[in-house]
Amino acid sequence: MKTIIVDIYGADAGPVPVIRGALRALELAPDFVLHFVGDRTLVEQEMAAMGADATRVTVSHTTDAITNFDRPTCVFNGRDESSMVMSLLALKNDPDAIGMLSAGNTGALLVGSIVRLGLLADIKSPALCSAIPVCDGKLVALVDCGANMDCRPRELARFALMGDAFMKSRCEMEAPRVGLLSVGREEGKGNRLTLDTYALLKDLPMNFIGNIEGNDVVNDVADVIVTDGFAGNILLKNVEAVGKTALAAIEELLPTADAAQREVLEKLHARLSAAYDFNPRGGATFLGTAKTVVKMHGCATEDTAYSCIDQLLLLERTGFSTRVKEALTYC
Amino acid sequence: MKTIIVDIYGADAGPVPVIRGALRALELAPDFVLHFVGDRTLVEQEMAAMGADATRVTVSHTTDAITNFDRPTCVFNGRDESSMVMSLLALKNDPDAIGMLSAGNTGALLVGSIVRLGLLADIKSPALCSAIPVCDGKLVALVDCGANMDCRPRELARFALMGDAFMKSRCEMEAPRVGLLSVGREEGKGNRLTLDTYALLKDLPMNFIGNIEGNDVVNDVADVIVTDGFAGNILLKNVEAVGKTALAAIEELLPTADAAQREVLEKLHARLSAAYDFNPRGGATFLGTAKTVVKMHGCATEDTAYSCIDQLLLLERTGFSTRVKEALTYC
Repeated sequence: MKTIIVDIYGADAGPVPVIRGALRALELAPDFVLHFVGDRTLVEQEMAAMGADATRVTVSHTTDAITNFDRPTCVFNGRDESSMVMSLLALKNDPDAIGMLSAGNTGALLVGSIVRLGLLADIKSPALCSAIPVCDGKLVALVDCGANMDCRPRELARFALMGDAFMKSRCEMEAPRVGLLSVGREEGKGNRLTLDTYALLKDLPMNFIGNIEGNDVVNDVADVIVTDGFAGNILLKNVEAVGKTALAAIEELLPTADAAQREVLEKLHARLSAAYDFNPRGGATFLGTAKTVVKMHGCATEDTAYSCIDQLLLLERTGFSTRVKEALTYC
Repeated sequence: MKTIIVDIYGADAGPVPVIRGALRALELAPDFVLHFVGDRTLVEQEMAAMGADATRVTVSHTTDAITNFDRPTCVFNGRDESSMVMSLLALKNDPDAIGMLSAGNTGALLVGSIVRLGLLADIKSPALCSAIPVCDGKLVALVDCGANMDCRPRELARFALMGDAFMKSRCEMEAPRVGLLSVGREEGKGNRLTLDTYALLKDLPMNFIGNIEGNDVVNDVADVIVTDGFAGNILLKNVEAVGKTALAAIEELLPTADAAQREVLEKLHARLSAAYDFNPRGGATFLGTAKTVVKMHGCATEDTAYSCIDQLLLLERTGFSTRVKEALTYC
């Protein structure tokens, strides 16, 4: 039976919400099981509390959690008993395992996915792909949003191919619009990296729409935004921060608002939260790993774990892993 | 008498708002004159309409305007009769001229400032500095926000020194907090450029606070944000675009709102506009030019021209040009 590996450690709120969200996700489909890696007693306690189907859960016991104070390279040789390394090895070695989720140290998870899990052919380092909600519930995939700092044009071209495959599976799109993040729409605008990448993207089998700009990110111009991990990370954090200043301004008005004003402010708050308070809901997908790894944000809640499992099931159903391997043959 | 040069062409709304805003700015101080470059009849018409003091205005007549369809390099050799080139030459050659403003083609203005006006010692290309409003009316200076795509560490270090000088003059601060835009607060986080720049900034005589992240831009962590023109441009456009989606969401609720709801929504709208609809109000200052050039946004209004002249007067009063020359001796 297909298996999803759950590293229970790493979330700011501790392992319980991760366990509960994952157990609740068993309702999503009957044909998969969960393999938790972490404190067995804790998992069994939550299973009992939720009346979970014990035939659909296995646990590999450990209490060693890699934290944000650990150096990412600690997983290189060692920390074999950590929940993160055990999860990566289970994902690699269990032929039924289709993916894993973890809220742990991003750097360690990246290093671990390279040295413990393994990468697809010719990939040097995975890219982080975040699906950002833009207008009307649509998602835009930002690749790379923080893993690769200094990139070459061919790496960006491969991010584009993998992002394209991701959106075809994740949002069941036929021809995602792939845009290259730059400083102007014209082909001649950009830095050396984007100018050289543009030349490569033009010849790849995808719906390349050319350059897009910083304001296009939230304007539903592209479905996939290709950039290096430096600019992508700055952009991702900025979108959320600017959105949150708007939410904070609304919250400040609430205490002095009357009932009718409260109603309209709450409506607005809900709408803007859906757009900009996205980290607790989703996870970043590693692109280029031998099997799918979803990194939940540190502020992961029960809903995060639930929706990340939903995403792993969707990616499996829509043939993401075959698609991404095929995509990488083009460049 | 000190003179401010006004290139009347380049704004989307045509030259009239620029002329009117500049004429109105004569009220700001008695001790300066305006030197308009553009259609004499038009300027005289607006002067008559506004009852402007003719002893404080001169005009160099031309009707040749460089547009956004012109290649930036057109000002290299030629277009000597364009308002932009004439303005740059007037700024250079008139010893009383303290600065100029233009809403024209940014690329042409950059090229023109290099080949027609001239740069400070050892500067290869000016940096664009935008003062972005953050919380409670405070400003943060973003350098470079779009002029220099591929930078070296020493260039970024010089952006930092010039940005520091700018904020000391522009906001009359003693020790602006200078932050380096990167992907994490720790010294070891970043790309090759920021890692090498960090090492330089540590030793410069300024209040260097280390790395800042994409979310810090709007969180009043730094007064000067140092980055290359690629990341800076993406960030600047993104801040405004995300802010505008919040404004658009408010505007959508207005038609169905009752009087009390309207009141609170309008209050919120005004507050967020002040933070995020900043382009029409301000201009980007060129850093590294022999004299101060302020580039107004294409959507410049009467208020833009007025406030840009206010800024030029402030920079002159607070000794910006001496300060920036001194700053550049440190690196």
